[in-house]
Amino acid sequence: MRVNVAPVPCEFAGAETGTAVVVVDVFRASTTIAAALAAGARFVLPVADVEQAVKLAEPYAENEVLLGGERECQRIEGFHLGNSPREYTREVVAGKVVILTTTNGTQALAAAKESGTVLVGSFVNFSAVADAVAGHEAVTVLCAGNNGRHSLEDFACAGGLVSRLAKRAAQLDDAALAARATYKSLRADLTRALASTEHARRLADLGFRADLDFALKVDSLPVVPRLTEGRIALLTA
Amino acid sequence: MRVNVAPVPCEFAGAETGTAVVVVDVFRASTTIAAALAAGARFVLPVADVEQAVKLAEPYAENEVLLGGERECQRIEGFHLGNSPREYTREVVAGKVVILTTTNGTQALAAAKESGTVLVGSFVNFSAVADAVAGHEAVTVLCAGNNGRHSLEDFACAGGLVSRLAKRAAQLDDAALAARATYKSLRADLTRALASTEHARRLADLGFRADLDFALKVDSLPVVPRLTEGRIALLTA
Repeated sequence: MRVNVAPVPCEFAGAETGTAVVVVDVFRASTTIAAALAAGARFVLPVADVEQAVKLAEPYAENEVLLGGERECQRIEGFHLGNSPREYTREVVAGKVVILTTTNGTQALAAAKESGTVLVGSFVNFSAVADAVAGHEAVTVLCAGNNGRHSLEDFACAGGLVSRLAKRAAQLDDAALAARATYKSLRADLTRALASTEHARRLADLGFRADLDFALKVDSLPVVPRLTEGRIALLTA
Repeated sequence: MRVNVAPVPCEFAGAETGTAVVVVDVFRASTTIAAALAAGARFVLPVADVEQAVKLAEPYAENEVLLGGERECQRIEGFHLGNSPREYTREVVAGKVVILTTTNGTQALAAAKESGTVLVGSFVNFSAVADAVAGHEAVTVLCAGNNGRHSLEDFACAGGLVSRLAKRAAQLDDAALAARATYKSLRADLTRALASTEHARRLADLGFRADLDFALKVDSLPVVPRLTEGRIALLTA
């Protein structure tokens, strides 16, 4: 099995046939998508911009759909929900379609969408996603990053996935080797290491500190979100 | 002091005024440039393409100039030297101008050239370069990478520089934190860790294994190459 990591979207040049792509945006889109689906949302429609989100909601009845997402980390005006995974509770999202637009995560999903198998990974569903891709010849972990730049939490999460996958005889590219080394160096105290990243400090300053704890709870939401024809739904075995 | 790392050139968006940029291409351009200047070359002219290299050599007398560089890791036809630092001995290069074109390193130098202070770093001149940038408000380490992709040896070298610079109260961006974590995780046996990278295996297969050992000898060539107006020469105190 070959395991590659694209630390930022600009390093992702598409994936060969047979490759599974795992899109990682720990703070917060990947985590929010896992939370929404674990709480019973029908599916999540990730879209790149606000106008498109509003347009996609139109065909649905008002009680069928929720608009979620952020710009500059904050809920978008007129939207039902922000990008805090803690908002996506069973009471709020069960049975609903969620249309989600975020700064980094939904853009990375857009980059990955032409690939065959696209899953959404984060610390909360870490092992479930690693198990789900285990049968593939090749896996690319695509880190969403932070406005086109490297994000430590995404890179460390990618490294954790690499670390799990490398237990099967695997060929790692250089970024995968670096991500794994980063993960190994930080895993003794992930929360402390990742609470000091640029994005984490920004979120904490804006009052979203609890989102960080939520996002760093390893394997707390063992679901496998899969993107198929524009929709993210639970992978069923 | 702020310390940033651009793990691949596509993440480098130029540097603010007052920022020192350190271009790192461990295998092999940065190491070769340090070797050439340590061996008494007058200066190195880094150029992006072969035609330009040949053209720039024209004004010089035949015994004043050497053409060096590689494509696909091999010496370019008609050139005096390849990109192996071991070729750049005192007997060969002392007093000469070296015109150098390589796949990754000289391209990264081209990206950095508009920045104020541009130095060339690698493991062989690690501490000397760290000391030279210590007075700056901000430092960006630009990794040349491998054909636009992440290169473990450049990232680990960047992490080593970060590690040294972070001893002074420093603010690190996420890529700098990841690079430092990578370096810390690998430094106990750098040679072993870095001999398994894609680029290292390629070079070893082509008969350049000794170049890897040369490039990983920390602080063996304590010189500070600086790019000014297109020429790389020794920084004089």
